[in-house]
Amino acid sequence: MNIDVIISADHIKEEYLENKTVVVIDMLRATSVIITALANGAKEVIPMLTVEESFKKKMELSKLGIPSLLGGERRAVKIEGFDFTNSPLEYTKEKIDQKVIILSTTNGTRAINLSLKAKKILIGAMINANAVVELLKNQEEDIVFINSGTNGEFSMDDFICSGYMINLLCQSHEHNLSDIAKTARYIYANNSDVVQYIKNARHYNVLKALNLEEDLKYCCKKSIVDIVPIVNKSSKTISIISK
Amino acid sequence: MNIDVIISADHIKEEYLENKTVVVIDMLRATSVIITALANGAKEVIPMLTVEESFKKKMELSKLGIPSLLGGERRAVKIEGFDFTNSPLEYTKEKIDQKVIILSTTNGTRAINLSLKAKKILIGAMINANAVVELLKNQEEDIVFINSGTNGEFSMDDFICSGYMINLLCQSHEHNLSDIAKTARYIYANNSDVVQYIKNARHYNVLKALNLEEDLKYCCKKSIVDIVPIVNKSSKTISIISK
Repeated sequence: MNIDVIISADHIKEEYLENKTVVVIDMLRATSVIITALANGAKEVIPMLTVEESFKKKMELSKLGIPSLLGGERRAVKIEGFDFTNSPLEYTKEKIDQKVIILSTTNGTRAINLSLKAKKILIGAMINANAVVELLKNQEEDIVFINSGTNGEFSMDDFICSGYMINLLCQSHEHNLSDIAKTARYIYANNSDVVQYIKNARHYNVLKALNLEEDLKYCCKKSIVDIVPIVNKSSKTISIISK
Repeated sequence: MNIDVIISADHIKEEYLENKTVVVIDMLRATSVIITALANGAKEVIPMLTVEESFKKKMELSKLGIPSLLGGERRAVKIEGFDFTNSPLEYTKEKIDQKVIILSTTNGTRAINLSLKAKKILIGAMINANAVVELLKNQEEDIVFINSGTNGEFSMDDFICSGYMINLLCQSHEHNLSDIAKTARYIYANNSDVVQYIKNARHYNVLKALNLEEDLKYCCKKSIVDIVPIVNKSSKTISIISK
């Protein structure tokens, strides 16, 4: 199969995604949050582009008798009136079990919303890479790893995460990699200490300044979670894919 | 200064280039042709998007008594009625001295045409990297390396060429590199044997199939030419920058 990487949400051409399986990555931190929340029992995650839409969605669900919690960030910090920041460590079982999470982040939710033309949209990060790869191995469509990036720019963290998954995919089979997919694989293969690598990224300094080093360490753990979230394209909600 | 890389002509946002110095790179082979032609005495190079425009320009110049030669490629092969292909090795002094070259290529001329909002547009390749860097050192504007790429896609050859120049720039001064600029530098720093590296690129196989390995070897030579071409934005012609 063909494997490609799109290096930021700004570079998504929606028609290019038709008939393909897409893996959306925003490892620092939106997709790590989605994976963690669902693994810890959240019923579903609803990605929202704006803060306003998020509050509106909460009201709608409330009227239907469905309790929900709000999570997300703007410029990496908590949104006023929200229950959680964008730290995956906050989404513990006792807080979110059986709850619906409405999530609004700067880059990740945007990338998901721009991926809706794909045949299948999976949610990936370092923490569930192996589970994603096991799923990808058993399907036929071409694969595009979509790096959410940071404010429309290429981000080293999402890129090395794509490289990790591509490297896992290529261990069992040969695939047809685009030049950018080969480059991502090369970066991972030469930098298996991901935390160390990401310390050179621009985005890292933002997180460090906000004392988010524990988040970083958690988000760089490799394949510690065994679930794969999938986007339900009609309802635009995210839940665990059934195996 | 800030240093960034745009990974293909498709990703150019023209307004982003305002007030910046741009280095357009299409090392296999358009910018290597432009540099070689000018170094071997061509008066100027005129980049043209279409074959039709190229013939029209030749007629116009002919009416003014200015002899010109046509060079370029479509899908890496010669265009019917043209004098040269896109091989830099054809542009020898005896053939092109004091001539105007009208050049139409798939990726490089397109990238140049999309860069006209930049403050300054330089033409770079492996063969003149050091000359470009010497010039960049003595200016103030932020720098964007524009990789022409291959048919709108990221291309490993242009990327490592950007990395080579960024690495040279960073040897004397610290600069503020974007994540993608850091990645390009990393790729070059770990692959100083550029021919070997490019043998893994998709584009390489196209050139190999066309027996263009001599071109590849030439285009990978480092800093063998001491001139820097610059685009004259009003006339859209390219000539050697005066030092």
